[in-house]
Amino acid sequence: MTFRHVVCFRWADDTTDEDVARFTEMLVGLPGVIPELRRYHFGRDAGAAEGNFDYAVAAEFDDRDGWVAYQEHPEHRRCIEYVRPLIRDRVAVQFDV
Amino acid sequence: MTFRHVVCFRWADDTTDEDVARFTEMLVGLPGVIPELRRYHFGRDAGAAEGNFDYAVAAEFDDRDGWVAYQEHPEHRRCIEYVRPLIRDRVAVQFDV
Repeated sequence: MTFRHVVCFRWADDTTDEDVARFTEMLVGLPGVIPELRRYHFGRDAGAAEGNFDYAVAAEFDDRDGWVAYQEHPEHRRCIEYVRPLIRDRVAVQFDV
Repeated sequence: MTFRHVVCFRWADDTTDEDVARFTEMLVGLPGVIPELRRYHFGRDAGAAEGNFDYAVAAEFDDRDGWVAYQEHPEHRRCIEYVRPLIRDRVAVQFDV
């Protein structure tokens, strides 16, 4: 089984490319410190479709406990605190596969 | 390289479990007819967090052309037509990995 987690962000008007690049750098570090992260992809919207949000994060865990460990990990909490003021909207779903 | 596509749905108030089950059945058939779909996962939100959307679809392609083939495939168009009246909100992101 796999437990999947997807999040889409829409940035606030005053969020800069540098803010987003810094956030991306922070995410790059997470798989190295959170072993429960089996797959972890993230990035800016490619501009391929109208009306999209601006950024997505997609993660896979063996089970819900893995996702909880990720949610609660201090390095991930640091990413959340960093990104919070950059966001206008956030949409998330977790689902079992 | 991988081109990723994530979509989150929030259902309309009158969307039923049967509507969602039928939509899920339709998605199950897509990898068999769209060879560009390298990985394809979808499902109802697990209820693990407050404020989530209701359903997500996560797809992977070798490149943007693969995603375009998926977007335009008649069987996928049929899924889109089916799901459109069931949706209150839809959020999508495509991104390169």
